[in-house]
Amino acid sequence: NGRSLKFESNDGEFSAQIGGRFQADAAFYGSDIPSGDATDIRRLFLDLSGQFYQDWGYRFQYDFARPGESSSSRGIRDAYLKYNGLEQGSITVGQFKTPFGLEHLTSSLNSTFLERGLNHLFSPDRRLGVGFDTYSENWTASIGAFGGPVESETSSGQDQDEGWNLIGRITTTPIKTDKSLIHLGVAVRQNWAQDSDKSQRYRASPEVEADGNRLIDTGLINQVDEQQAYGLEFASVVGPFSVQAEYTQTQLQRSCSPDLKFDGWYVFTSYFLTGESRPYKKGVFDRIKPLHAVGNGGIGAWELAARYSTADLNDADIYGGELDNATLGLNWYTTDNVRFSANYIRVLDVNRPGSDVDGIDGDILALRAQFDF
Amino acid sequence: NGRSLKFESNDGEFSAQIGGRFQADAAFYGSDIPSGDATDIRRLFLDLSGQFYQDWGYRFQYDFARPGESSSSRGIRDAYLKYNGLEQGSITVGQFKTPFGLEHLTSSLNSTFLERGLNHLFSPDRRLGVGFDTYSENWTASIGAFGGPVESETSSGQDQDEGWNLIGRITTTPIKTDKSLIHLGVAVRQNWAQDSDKSQRYRASPEVEADGNRLIDTGLINQVDEQQAYGLEFASVVGPFSVQAEYTQTQLQRSCSPDLKFDGWYVFTSYFLTGESRPYKKGVFDRIKPLHAVGNGGIGAWELAARYSTADLNDADIYGGELDNATLGLNWYTTDNVRFSANYIRVLDVNRPGSDVDGIDGDILALRAQFDF
Amino acid sequence: NGRSLKFESNDGEFSAQIGGRFQADAAFYGSDIPSGDATDIRRLFLDLSGQFYQDWGYRFQYDFARPGESSSSRGIRDAYLKYNGLEQGSITVGQFKTPFGLEHLTSSLNSTFLERGLNHLFSPDRRLGVGFDTYSENWTASIGAFGGPVESETSSGQDQDEGWNLIGRITTTPIKTDKSLIHLGVAVRQNWAQDSDKSQRYRASPEVEADGNRLIDTGLINQVDEQQAYGLEFASVVGPFSVQAEYTQTQLQRSCSPDLKFDGWYVFTSYFLTGESRPYKKGVFDRIKPLHAVGNGGIGAWELAARYSTADLNDADIYGGELDNATLGLNWYTTDNVRFSANYIRVLDVNRPGSDVDGIDGDILALRAQFDF
Repeated sequence: NGRSLKFESNDGEFSAQIGGRFQADAAFYGSDIPSGDATDIRRLFLDLSGQFYQDWGYRFQYDFARPGESSSSRGIRDAYLKYNGLEQGSITVGQFKTPFGLEHLTSSLNSTFLERGLNHLFSPDRRLGVGFDTYSENWTASIGAFGGPVESETSSGQDQDEGWNLIGRITTTPIKTDKSLIHLGVAVRQNWAQDSDKSQRYRASPEVEADGNRLIDTGLINQVDEQQAYGLEFASVVGPFSVQAEYTQTQLQRSCSPDLKFDGWYVFTSYFLTGESRPYKKGVFDRIKPLHAVGNGGIGAWELAARYSTADLNDADIYGGELDNATLGLNWYTTDNVRFSANYIRVLDVNRPGSDVDGIDGDILALRAQFDF
Repeated sequence: NGRSLKFESNDGEFSAQIGGRFQADAAFYGSDIPSGDATDIRRLFLDLSGQFYQDWGYRFQYDFARPGESSSSRGIRDAYLKYNGLEQGSITVGQFKTPFGLEHLTSSLNSTFLERGLNHLFSPDRRLGVGFDTYSENWTASIGAFGGPVESETSSGQDQDEGWNLIGRITTTPIKTDKSLIHLGVAVRQNWAQDSDKSQRYRASPEVEADGNRLIDTGLINQVDEQQAYGLEFASVVGPFSVQAEYTQTQLQRSCSPDLKFDGWYVFTSYFLTGESRPYKKGVFDRIKPLHAVGNGGIGAWELAARYSTADLNDADIYGGELDNATLGLNWYTTDNVRFSANYIRVLDVNRPGSDVDGIDGDILALRAQFDF
Repeated sequence: NGRSLKFESNDGEFSAQIGGRFQADAAFYGSDIPSGDATDIRRLFLDLSGQFYQDWGYRFQYDFARPGESSSSRGIRDAYLKYNGLEQGSITVGQFKTPFGLEHLTSSLNSTFLERGLNHLFSPDRRLGVGFDTYSENWTASIGAFGGPVESETSSGQDQDEGWNLIGRITTTPIKTDKSLIHLGVAVRQNWAQDSDKSQRYRASPEVEADGNRLIDTGLINQVDEQQAYGLEFASVVGPFSVQAEYTQTQLQRSCSPDLKFDGWYVFTSYFLTGESRPYKKGVFDRIKPLHAVGNGGIGAWELAARYSTADLNDADIYGGELDNATLGLNWYTTDNVRFSANYIRVLDVNRPGSDVDGIDGDILALRAQFDF
């Protein structure tokens, strides 16, 4: 971050750096949405990262706001050891983000909206495993083998043990100058279920997590032998303007029932009224730094954004629901580490036959105060 | 604390300070009290606080001893961002102590007895919200708007979502010299319940938490539309001698049942055998510093204290119970951050018609070892 | 560790040191073992320890990988205050390891195998209490009084409140030179149950914890008034070669049923192919330091080990089961703080009449990546 709360051992062989992240939300739901107004600590992370013996790195990151949601994650986010001693790339062992999805791999600190697009429900989040990363000036490549459940982040309340995963991602930037950029990315995932538990569940909140209510939810899908997923990514930055889109599709092969196919996508555009440009680094978006921070005589950075986002969990005998959302966002970055955001979300439609929420539409206003160090 | 485990970024723009707090209890219950002898880690806090860009402050405080008691608190105590850039006062956003009650706002480190007086069960504890604080030499004022449940600290095992709160407090010190003081305070709270959950519960342990048993408990009170509470505070210090008292009353308006009125109060006196005087700062009591610490040839500070404390949760159709306690306390402060305490608690009476504990009295001996840094 | 991430207050009166530990496991079970292949974060500790005012020490250690397993432990491992101001020894108050067992008191970082021997299920782990330690060049002695449950570490999922314990241990080293050693130890424990809860449970996994399945388990044994346990320890190191053995027996006195006697033991031998010798300090084994670390032109330290381990939980009317395991271990210490281990475990026999697992045998392959700082 340029700034760092870092300390070292006397011999300089060990270093540690402390960081934290805090996001507090308030959400106000229109009367058609079956959720009560709520406040929520969305994230409260502490992390400790460092280097030792030149070639080794490590990182621990824990979310104090979600300690018990899943016995598989138990609030532990990153917990890995990294070996940087190879010329060709680096090897990571432990729990870390699986290489799948542009928004998924971009820090929640730098997400344009409060929550990621609805297709994010297909992202396999963090898993225990082994990974290999490499990059050059115009591309990145990552591959990993992971155990643990394959759940969307939003369904982590359940502890599902779903065997083994191979996940890989490649990105490229055919155009990349100081303030303009085209990013293309593709990711694939193959999952083999374990005999002892072949159930799977996908679900999502309406892009606000304060209440915890999910508008779409497949419930447990049984007898899922294998899954394949792929994701496509596009982003472009031209000065203060940017546009970004992702599409994700997943297929589930079931033993005694027809195969299933679910998908989701979003497209958004963002514009900085104050002239900043979204920074990018090694295949993901990076931290916004206001040109004129509050306190240095400036008014910080102001960003307007609009998104359309959808996910479809209806297929064959599964009526998880289809959700369409439109969102307007306003972000105020007072300094490079303090941000206040407002999202107005219009739930355009829920198509979920047989459910109470089928056919509803409505409004949500969500506010966030965020800072990190 | 005068001492601080602090570190800074290279550019001096960020600072962080690590602190911790540890309280281990043992409690021995007389045979009439339906609780088994127990040991308990009462509090194990770590906190991280600091400043950045001059005007901003932050604080995280987590209680590792109570991580899962309430999904609303999740062990998170303080988690806030503070803006000190205004001339008139400071603005706080996040989770922090609501401004209600002298003992509530005084750190548990500096509580004269192991647990706060019984009226503390009405304190709305920490909530997510926005607050404004200001003070001058002879007065303090705080006001805040908060979401989240309105529960007493001792009932945090339940996750109740109770709408919105406005809470304010004013204190003044008509007399304040180096070693003598008169403190007066008043606080008010208005609570609006949320449609989706209008239940409320008040309960309390007999001023010892090691066992978790509550002698008085209203159970869930349904259809509570609004609540109003107020608290009155008095304290006076004259050299080694001090006296302190608080009264709290809360009223519950119910949709289809008569309104309810509960209250509680305590009065205590304390005397330092070794000549120290209770320090006071900005509307709350502060840390005791022994005049002659153990290790510097001294015997530390020794304090004797006696308290009478009562709470009445009986009204209309609710028989939560009335509890009267008398407590003798002995505190030994070996240094300014290590303290050993013994409390002898006499449960004088429990008036709780229809309950097993109705009419009981009995004795409790509770011990604590405490330190912080 | 020679290296330390330490910081001090300005006046030098306070110090704090940050440490962490990470162990990630993967386990593959043969088809006869009723467990699914699994990955697991076995341990993720952070600890904070330090000194203040010369004579005082403290330590907090929290396991983020096991936060909610037991309301008695709540993930808190060490949480104690230590007074070193006495000439004769030191006094500890808080939660810390009870003085019982060589492997139990040796850090999991320095365990030769992934999990301790099966007799470890009788170890009373960490408890809240008060202890006194002293040592000289050729012996150590520890004694403590503890509250809290008396459970084996592997059964900590249950919150049993079992009164009070007196536990003591004495060790001696009749031979101790630079690279050779004979260690002898004996420990005893007396437990008095509390009237309100006299149940007790012993159980164990097959020396791999990734899946959480226990092959032997007494279930809850009721009406246990008192327990006595003793443990015998032997270890010898001769250069790169070492042998180690422990035997533990526990007796349970029940009110209305015959007394019970359970026991367990292990013996293992280890050999460093690369010439290192197991270091020893104050009654426990210490950290392995490779003679030629990876990164300094070396291949690290390589250790081969073999163990036989057994526990018998069958007695009178209790058929908890008897388990016999043989294990081959390979450890690669790349540096003094990074270790990769493989254990091949042969479950030789389960003798547990009336259970599904009675008579099974089978294979388990378990892998671990570990580092600490």
